[in-house]
Amino acid sequence: MKALAKEIPASTLDTDPVSRLRHGHGHTMMEIHAIHEGQLQRVPDLVVHPTEESHVVALVTAADTHDVVLIPYGGGTCVTEALLCPTNEGRMIVSVDMRQMNRIEWIDPVNRLACIQAGAVGRHIMDSLAEHGFTIGHEPDSVEFSTLGGWVATNASGMKKNRYGNIEDIVMDVRAVTARGTLERFGVSPRESTGADPRRWLFGSEGNLGIITSAVVKLFPLPEAQRYGSVLFPSFDHGVRFMYDLAQAGQWPASVRLVDNLQFQFSMALKPAASGFHVWKSKLEKLFVTKVKGFQPDEMVACTLVYEGTEDEVSGQEKTVARLGRLHDGMPAGSENGRRGYQLTFSIAYIRDFVYKLRVMGESFETSVAWSDLTTLCANVKRRVIEEHVRRGLPGVPFITCRVTQIYDTGACVYFYLGLGSEGVENPIQAFMEIETAARDEILKSGGSLSHHHGVGKLRQRFLPQIMSETAMTWNREAKDAIDPNNVFGCGNLPPSPDAAEGAKVGEAA
Amino acid sequence: MKALAKEIPASTLDTDPVSRLRHGHGHTMMEIHAIHEGQLQRVPDLVVHPTEESHVVALVTAADTHDVVLIPYGGGTCVTEALLCPTNEGRMIVSVDMRQMNRIEWIDPVNRLACIQAGAVGRHIMDSLAEHGFTIGHEPDSVEFSTLGGWVATNASGMKKNRYGNIEDIVMDVRAVTARGTLERFGVSPRESTGADPRRWLFGSEGNLGIITSAVVKLFPLPEAQRYGSVLFPSFDHGVRFMYDLAQAGQWPASVRLVDNLQFQFSMALKPAASGFHVWKSKLEKLFVTKVKGFQPDEMVACTLVYEGTEDEVSGQEKTVARLGRLHDGMPAGSENGRRGYQLTFSIAYIRDFVYKLRVMGESFETSVAWSDLTTLCANVKRRVIEEHVRRGLPGVPFITCRVTQIYDTGACVYFYLGLGSEGVENPIQAFMEIETAARDEILKSGGSLSHHHGVGKLRQRFLPQIMSETAMTWNREAKDAIDPNNVFGCGNLPPSPDAAEGAKVGEAA
Repeated sequence: MKALAKEIPASTLDTDPVSRLRHGHGHTMMEIHAIHEGQLQRVPDLVVHPTEESHVVALVTAADTHDVVLIPYGGGTCVTEALLCPTNEGRMIVSVDMRQMNRIEWIDPVNRLACIQAGAVGRHIMDSLAEHGFTIGHEPDSVEFSTLGGWVATNASGMKKNRYGNIEDIVMDVRAVTARGTLERFGVSPRESTGADPRRWLFGSEGNLGIITSAVVKLFPLPEAQRYGSVLFPSFDHGVRFMYDLAQAGQWPASVRLVDNLQFQFSMALKPAASGFHVWKSKLEKLFVTKVKGFQPDEMVACTLVYEGTEDEVSGQEKTVARLGRLHDGMPAGSENGRRGYQLTFSIAYIRDFVYKLRVMGESFETSVAWSDLTTLCANVKRRVIEEHVRRGLPGVPFITCRVTQIYDTGACVYFYLGLGSEGVENPIQAFMEIETAARDEILKSGGSLSHHHGVGKLRQRFLPQIMSETAMTWNREAKDAIDPNNVFGCGNLPPSPDAAEGAKVGEAA
Repeated sequence: MKALAKEIPASTLDTDPVSRLRHGHGHTMMEIHAIHEGQLQRVPDLVVHPTEESHVVALVTAADTHDVVLIPYGGGTCVTEALLCPTNEGRMIVSVDMRQMNRIEWIDPVNRLACIQAGAVGRHIMDSLAEHGFTIGHEPDSVEFSTLGGWVATNASGMKKNRYGNIEDIVMDVRAVTARGTLERFGVSPRESTGADPRRWLFGSEGNLGIITSAVVKLFPLPEAQRYGSVLFPSFDHGVRFMYDLAQAGQWPASVRLVDNLQFQFSMALKPAASGFHVWKSKLEKLFVTKVKGFQPDEMVACTLVYEGTEDEVSGQEKTVARLGRLHDGMPAGSENGRRGYQLTFSIAYIRDFVYKLRVMGESFETSVAWSDLTTLCANVKRRVIEEHVRRGLPGVPFITCRVTQIYDTGACVYFYLGLGSEGVENPIQAFMEIETAARDEILKSGGSLSHHHGVGKLRQRFLPQIMSETAMTWNREAKDAIDPNNVFGCGNLPPSPDAAEGAKVGEAA
C-alpha cells in the first residue's frame, strides 16, 4: 500500500470491511449461502478502484514487486466461484474493481467501432450507444450489472447472439495489463492472419492472465424493426424439432428460446393476475389451447422469439418461424407472451434471492450440446437430479427445469434451473452442491460441454481433465507460468498451476 | 532415421533429392526465382509421408529425442516463406508431408459435422462431401492444392467466407501432435466457455507449435441456388461506396469482389476472342457502356458476385445488389462475366509462372483495412510502387493493380498484384523484393494489417514489432518456449525465439 500511495490517488484504495466482503464472492448459491451464514472463508485484503489505465499498470507492477495477488472484479455476477479468494493463498489479495473505468473512449460511426473501457456496465453501454443510434447487441442475463471486461474474461454469450454474435465475435480488439507489460496491438483490423493472437487468450481467461482495461467492439445500427413473438408446442420434442429446423433454415430471429413444460407453467404462475374482461379472455384462450387444440397442460411448451433487423429481415424471419411452427404442430401465442418470456430472464436472479429467504435454494447452470444429444441430455439431467434427491432422502420434490436458449448450426445451449427446499435438511448447501455436481457429471456423460458461457472458475475445475487432454492442460499451465511467473494473477481459476489448483478446493470445502 | 525405422514403415521415408527440393519452398516469387537460378540455400534433409497419426507421434517423439527439426507440409502453396528451411539451423530438418493423411474419418449429417484428416486437399474435400450433399464452403485461391491442416496453420480465408465463414468459423475442433503430446479435446461443442482454448493457438501457428492431424468442420448443404452476377461502375470510388453500403445492408452474396480499372482491363484481355455474331455483340456492348452510359474505359471497374443459398436468399441478395448498384451508378453486366471473374482467380498463379519465363516477375499480396482507409490505402500503395520503381531507374512501368475480395462489417480485404519486367535488370529479384517490402511498409502506414490471410512466415517477420506490443511478442515467444522447449518445430516463422528470428534472415539474404 505504501508503494501504491506514490503512484495512485488514495481515494482509489478501499479497506472498508463491507466493501471487501462485497468483492470476495460471486453469485453461486454456495456463495450467497456462505454470506448469509457468515461462512465466507476469506475476502480480499484490499479493494482498489482504478480510474485510469496508469493506475492498473502501477498496481500490477507493485503487486509483482511485493508478491501480492490481484483479482480483477467487474460486475460481480460471476457464477463459477471465480471471485472467491483461494483459502490457501498466503499472500495479500487485492480485488481490482474496474467499474470506475467505464468511459466510451471513442466511437467511429463509419467503420462502426467503439473503444470502451473494461469497467463499463452492460446497461450503461446500451444507453450511451443508443444515443448515437447504435448497439453492440450483447445482452447476457446479467446485463444490468456485468461489464465489458467481465464478458471477455468469461467468454460471454448474449441472448441476441443469433444476430450480433457472441462476445468473441463482437470484440475486435482488447487491451490488457499483464505481469509482462501491456498487451496491445497497434490498429484494429477487420480480420487478419498474423500468428497465434495472444489477445484471443484473454477470452475466457477468468482473471488468470491479466487485467483487461479496454476493448474495441463492433457497432450495429439500432434495429429498424423489433418485434416479439411466441409459439406453443404440444411437447418439448415438438419444440426441439422446430428449433433444429430453424437452425438449419437460416434467417434466425435475434433470440429464440424454448422453455420446457415446468418452466412454462412457472412463467404462467408469475403472470400478473388478470381482471375484468381479461379474466374471460384468459380463460377462453386456455380453453382453446387445451380443449380445441388438444394440448396437454402438463406437456405443452412455449417458444419465445425476439426479431430484430430491417423490416424486410424481420418479416422474413417471421415467415420462416410461422412455416416451421405449423410444420411441428405449433400455435402462435402472440407478441405479449414473447416479450414477457424474454424479460422474465432478468428477474430470475431476483426470484432466487427472494425464495432463498423462504428456504428454497436455487441455481442455474448451462451447457452446449449437439442437436442429436439435446433431448436425451435434458431427460438424463432431470432424471439424475430426481434420483440423487431421492437417494439422499431429501424432503419434497426438486424443481428442475430447462430451456434451450441459443441455437447454432451444430447444436444449442441448454439452461437448467435447479431448486431444492432446505427446510429441515441438516446440511442443505452440501446436498445442493452434491446434486449440482451430479447434474454436471450427467451433462458430460450425455455429450454436453463443461460450460456454454458461465465458465470454469473454481466450481468446475475438477471436470477439466474429463474434457481436455493432458497436453491441453499442460499448454495452458506452462503458458500461464511463462507469462505470469510470479502468479500475480493467482485467482486460482482454471488449471493455472498444480499449486493454485489445490487452493481451488475452497469451493468444495465450504 | 534408425529410430524411425522401428516405428513407421520404410515406405514413408523419402530421401529423393527432387522430393527434398520440392518440399523446401513455397510459392513466393523469391522462392520460384531461387529454384530457377539454383539458389535455394537449404532444403529438408528428409521427407516423411505419414499415413497414420501414430506415425506423426513417433516422428515427433524421435525428433524431440534426437534433436531434429520438423516442418509440417501441406499443399506447399504458402506465400510467406514459411516453408523455407532456416539456413542457420544446425540440426537435421525433416519435412512432414501430410498428404497421405487425407481421409474423411466420419460424417455426421444430423449435426452437420465431418472429421477430416489434415492432409486432405481442398478440391478432394469438396468432391467427397458433395457426394453426400454437403460442402464446407471454404474456397481459398489455392483450393486445388492446399490442405485442411494448412488452412488452420495459415488462418486461411476462402472466397465464399461471407456465407460460410473463414477457417476459424468453419473448424469446430482440431487435433495436433506436439512436443508435449497430443493436443485434443473429448467431444465437439457448438460453442463453449472453458478457459483460454489451446486449440485456438493452432490457428495461424504456421508450423511453430505442432503438427495438425485432423479437424472437425461444419458442413453446409449444397446450395439450392447458385447464380453469378456482375456490375460495372464508372470508377473505383463508386465501386467502393457500393461495397460499403452492401456490407452495411446485410444479405451478403457468398462472394463479392471489386477489381480496379487495370485489373478489369487485364481480365478483358484474357477473355477468349469473340467470333462471328459475338464480335458484333461484344462491340455493341462496349459502345453502349462507353458512349451511352459515358463510362471511361480507363476509369471503369467491375464487381463480380457469386450468390449461394436457398432460392429466397439468393433472390433477396440479388435485389439488394441491384438496388445498391443503381444507387452508385452501376450497370449490370451479366452472369457470364461474373462467373469468368470468379474463376479467373484460380488461373492467376499459372499466369505468374507463365510470364516469369517471359521475364516478368509477379506476386500477389494482401491486407485488411477499415472501410474509411480503403481507398487511400489502395492509392498510396500504387503510388509508392511507382515511386520506388522510378527511384531505382527500372525499365518500363510496373504492373500494380488491386481488388477488394472480402467484406466485413468494419472493413475489407484488399488484394494486390505486382508485376515487374526483369529484362536488363541486374539483380531483378532484389529490386522486386525491395519494392514489395516498400509496398508492405506503405500498407501498414495507411492503416492496413500485416496480413489478411497469407500469414507472416519469414517474409513479414520484420514487421511484427510494428503491429504488436513487446508484451504480445513476449507472450508468444514464452508460450512457444514453454510448450516446445527443444524447438522441435523450429521452422523459424513468426517470432518464436530471438535465435530463430536470426535464421529468418534467409529471405532477405537470398
